[in-house]
Amino acid sequence: MLFDLPTPGFSFELLATLGNARAGILHTPRGDILTPVFMPVGTLGTVKAMTVAELEAPPLDARIILGNTYHLYLRPGLDVISAHGGLHGFSGWRRPILTDSGGFQVFSLAAINEIDDDGVTFRSHIDGSKHRLDPETSMRIQATLGSDIAMVFDQCPPGDANADVHALAIRRTTAWAHRCLATTRPSGQALFGIVQGGTDLDRRRAHLAELAALPFDGLAIGGLAVGESLDDTYRILDAFAHELPADKPRYVMGVGTPTDLARGVAAGVDMFDCVMPTRNARNGYLFTSTGKVVISNAKYRLDTGPIDAECPCDTCRTTSRAYLRHLHMAREILYNRLATLHNLTFYARTMRALRDRILADGSKA
Amino acid sequence: MLFDLPTPGFSFELLATLGNARAGILHTPRGDILTPVFMPVGTLGTVKAMTVAELEAPPLDARIILGNTYHLYLRPGLDVISAHGGLHGFSGWRRPILTDSGGFQVFSLAAINEIDDDGVTFRSHIDGSKHRLDPETSMRIQATLGSDIAMVFDQCPPGDANADVHALAIRRTTAWAHRCLATTRPSGQALFGIVQGGTDLDRRRAHLAELAALPFDGLAIGGLAVGESLDDTYRILDAFAHELPADKPRYVMGVGTPTDLARGVAAGVDMFDCVMPTRNARNGYLFTSTGKVVISNAKYRLDTGPIDAECPCDTCRTTSRAYLRHLHMAREILYNRLATLHNLTFYARTMRALRDRILADGSKA
Repeated sequence: MLFDLPTPGFSFELLATLGNARAGILHTPRGDILTPVFMPVGTLGTVKAMTVAELEAPPLDARIILGNTYHLYLRPGLDVISAHGGLHGFSGWRRPILTDSGGFQVFSLAAINEIDDDGVTFRSHIDGSKHRLDPETSMRIQATLGSDIAMVFDQCPPGDANADVHALAIRRTTAWAHRCLATTRPSGQALFGIVQGGTDLDRRRAHLAELAALPFDGLAIGGLAVGESLDDTYRILDAFAHELPADKPRYVMGVGTPTDLARGVAAGVDMFDCVMPTRNARNGYLFTSTGKVVISNAKYRLDTGPIDAECPCDTCRTTSRAYLRHLHMAREILYNRLATLHNLTFYARTMRALRDRILADGSKA
Repeated sequence: MLFDLPTPGFSFELLATLGNARAGILHTPRGDILTPVFMPVGTLGTVKAMTVAELEAPPLDARIILGNTYHLYLRPGLDVISAHGGLHGFSGWRRPILTDSGGFQVFSLAAINEIDDDGVTFRSHIDGSKHRLDPETSMRIQATLGSDIAMVFDQCPPGDANADVHALAIRRTTAWAHRCLATTRPSGQALFGIVQGGTDLDRRRAHLAELAALPFDGLAIGGLAVGESLDDTYRILDAFAHELPADKPRYVMGVGTPTDLARGVAAGVDMFDCVMPTRNARNGYLFTSTGKVVISNAKYRLDTGPIDAECPCDTCRTTSRAYLRHLHMAREILYNRLATLHNLTFYARTMRALRDRILADGSKA
C-alpha cells in the first residue's frame, strides 16, 4: 500500500504487517530507505571512524544517517557547510540525511540554557559563546544543512520531570510544531513532528491528538531513553507506538539496544537512531549473535576466532578477537574503525532480519 | 641484471641506473617490491589508522611495510602473535614485512637500558618490566614474527656520540652481525646487515669493509637522522650510499622527508622507512605537490578544494580542505584516516615518480 506524504517526492510504502510490526519502504528523492531501519549517527558530519564508502558498502549498506543540528551549527559553522552546498556536499554522503532540531542537545549539552515560550538561549559547551535557538532558527539551520528529513524544534523534558514541566513542554512543542510547519523548507526536505509526554500514556495520547492531523511526513516519539526505567520505555512503546498514524513512518528517537530495537519494531516503529553501536564499539563493547563481547577481557588474548562467526563484515572476515583486543589495549585508531564497522553491521543485520521476518510471516499490506 | 641473494627465494633485479640512482625489483617469496621504495611503518601490527585493504589498493599500493620488534615483543607479546602463525596472520597483511631488530627502540624508548658486549638489558617503557635483548633473542623474536626481511641487532649511537662510543658500537655491531648470521632463520626470511659510523665517512667505510663480504641479503645505513645536522646526513648519503654493494638492495633507516627521499635515491638508496607521513598526517601536516599544508590553518576554513588537486587518492577525490580541517579541529577519527591515506599516497607517488624517471632517462642495467 503506497501512501503519498505531504512533501513532494516522499512516499511511504507499507509492504507487510505482523501484529503491530511493519515492513515498508520510505521513498525519498535521494533514495529508498527499507524499514524498519536503524540510522547511524553522524554527529559532526561523520559517522565516527567511518568513511562514506564503508557506510554505503554491503553488508552494512546504510540507507540514511543522522546529522546533529546543534553540533554542526557550532562546529564547523553554517558558513563552512553552506560553502559546500550543504551537509551532503560537505561530508560526501549522497544518500538521505535526517537532522534533529538541536533542541535535545541544547537541553542536555549546553553549558547554560534558558527556555521561554519563544525558544532557548544557551551557551556553547565548546567555548561558552551565547546563542539563541527557536523554531524558525532551527528550520533555517536545517535548511542550510540541506537534510532530507528535518525534525521540528521541540522541548524534551528529562525522565524525572513532573507533570507541570511535561504540560508546558507539550504546549510549547505543539506551538513550535506549527511554527516549523509555517516556514518555507527547501524543496526535497520532509518534516517530522515529535510527540512528547514522558511515560504517561494519556499525556502521550493527548499530545498525539494535537499533532496527528498536521501535515507532517512522519511522526516521532521523543522523550524516551532520557532517564526513565526500561519498563516505562517498553510500556509506552508497546501501548503507544501503533497509535501513531499508520500511513506515515514512525520514528523513536535515541533508542537503543538491539533488544530495544526488536521491541520497538514489534510495537510498530519504523525508524531508530542511537549512538550505542558506534560509541560502544569505541569503548570496547561489541555486539554479536551470541551476546556482548567485552574485547578487553583477558580471555580473548589468544583468541584467533572472529568477533562473530556469523557476521559477514570485513572486520569479522579478516581479523581475530586477539588482534582487536591488542589494537584496543594499545589505543590504535584501527581498532575504532574495525569495531565500529562491526557494530553498525550487526545493527543493520538485526534490522534486516526483523524486516525479513515481517515480510515472510506477515500479512501483505 | 638479476642478482641472486643469499637467502633462497630472494633476488635483486637492477633495471636501470641514472648517476648513482637505481631502479629495480626486490623479488621475495611474498611478492615483488619495486625499488626505490618507501615502506610505511606499522609499529604495533598496524600502519596507524589504515586497514590492510587500503594499504594494498592503488594508487597507494604499498608493497612492503615495517613492523617493530621491540613494540610487538612488549605488546601484544610473542605468544599472541605466535597463536596466529606470525605477524602476517595476526595483522592480515599478506605482502612482505621488514622487521627491525629492536635495538634502536631499546636505546631510544626504554626507561632504562644497560648495554654490554653481549646485549642490552632494559625496562619496558610501558610497565617498567625488565627484559634482555641480544642478537640471538632479537633473531628469535623476528623468527616468531615471521618477517620477510629481518635486520641484524645493532648498536645505534645518538647523533652527538663521540669517537669512542662509535668505535665500540661498530665493534659490537660487527660481532653481533656475525652472531645473527649464525642463527637459523625460518625459511623465506632474508637478513640485512647495518652499517654504523655516524657522520664520519672513513669510519663508515671501515665498518662497511667488515660487513660487505658477509652473506647478507641487503645492507642498511643505520645511525642517520638521529640528531646530526641535515648537512651531515646528506654528506654521508651523497658520498657513501653508492659504496654499498651494487648487487644487493640498499636501505637507509628512518629517513625521511620527501626531499630526503629524493636525495637518498639520487645517492643510490633503494629502500626507506619513516614515521613522518603517518605521524605528520595525524598532527595536521599534509604533503602536496605544491608544498606542505597545515590543515588547522584558518585560511582553509571555507576552502572547498582538495588537499592536492594532482593527487588521485580517495581523500583528495572525495573531500575538501575545509572538511578535513573541520574533522581535524573536532579531533574526529576519520581525519586521521583520510590524512594518513593521503600522506602515504603522496610518498608512494613520489617514489614511483623517481623510479619512472630513472627508468625513462637512465641506462639499462
